[in-house]
Amino acid sequence: VSAFVDFYFDFSSPYSYVAAHLIEKIAERHKRTVIWHPIVIGTAFKAVGGAPLPTIPLRNDYVERDVSRLARFVGLPYQHPSAYPIPTQHAACAFLWGQDRDPERAKEFARKVFHAYFVENRNIADLDVVLEIIESFGLERAAAHEALTGSQLKERLKAETELAMSRGVFAAPFFIVDGEPFWGYSRLPILEKWLAEGPF
Amino acid sequence: VSAFVDFYFDFSSPYSYVAAHLIEKIAERHKRTVIWHPIVIGTAFKAVGGAPLPTIPLRNDYVERDVSRLARFVGLPYQHPSAYPIPTQHAACAFLWGQDRDPERAKEFARKVFHAYFVENRNIADLDVVLEIIESFGLERAAAHEALTGSQLKERLKAETELAMSRGVFAAPFFIVDGEPFWGYSRLPILEKWLAEGPF
Repeated sequence: VSAFVDFYFDFSSPYSYVAAHLIEKIAERHKRTVIWHPIVIGTAFKAVGGAPLPTIPLRNDYVERDVSRLARFVGLPYQHPSAYPIPTQHAACAFLWGQDRDPERAKEFARKVFHAYFVENRNIADLDVVLEIIESFGLERAAAHEALTGSQLKERLKAETELAMSRGVFAAPFFIVDGEPFWGYSRLPILEKWLAEGPF
Repeated sequence: VSAFVDFYFDFSSPYSYVAAHLIEKIAERHKRTVIWHPIVIGTAFKAVGGAPLPTIPLRNDYVERDVSRLARFVGLPYQHPSAYPIPTQHAACAFLWGQDRDPERAKEFARKVFHAYFVENRNIADLDVVLEIIESFGLERAAAHEALTGSQLKERLKAETELAMSRGVFAAPFFIVDGEPFWGYSRLPILEKWLAEGPF
């Protein structure tokens, strides 16, 4: 049995924001470490023939309402962003860059990015916004800027997304526990039963 | 405040099968009556630009696994049907026909149809299978056959689906409580909080 829980998220996914606040406590209760994997879900959707939620009109209205209500249900602040969805490549690359330095602080960074987008309505598609958040962690803006404008992190993000898809990930949030896939915030209670009791 | 909970379901939807076994107890705890509404989700998907789950490859594999696991989680038998998804017009029309006679027995009928499809692997797209289930309730096969092969119930089912869509329903299972929409099995705990406390 692996000691890990793999957590796949997209910074543009409000349900990923909710999951990012819940998964660590669940894993802790069962002595697991969560490995966070940013993916770019637009890429995944192209391959599997789905569509981002907001392109489907009835569903779009529902999702905005559902996420706000869900956030109240779990006790998180939420304000639906005025620009949604947005490209999240910079934020995802910044996460990878930070993860190499300190995986646990990178999780804090991710929560701060989610908060900027889903609570403060800041446009995290903007490189400057991402760099400001990086700076707030005491990291050097110039080094981050160089890494984020180069091609290496972008290629790595693409490879991370392709690797995720090869494991069956087609949406976010998505979790894999010992090979078992769980899609969505709503499967967390089932994931926890799995952690507690093993396969059922 | 309305005394009702509207429950929209498609006989081809495994998550509707699960919801059909849970919604009555939840409503009872809060002294609500559940009104069951069969809809034909294929029609709805055409309008909103979505697609039935099995047409999306990675998602299809996941859904089969997820539903089996979910059924074990809530304690229901489940066997993924060999023909899936299937047209559910006959079963939905039969439900409407029975509902005019006895709304509570029609719910039993619906659960029996779900069981035939998702446990016994019987093809409920087949008119004869639907008629057999009707007969098992002591109802007259000839009268049911006449109603199910006529145009009236089919037109009514179409109108029911259009009415549902005009209320924001785009998938099944779907619930509406005092105007508030809830999509999916997984929102039942949030629906129950709504029933208990009102809007939050």
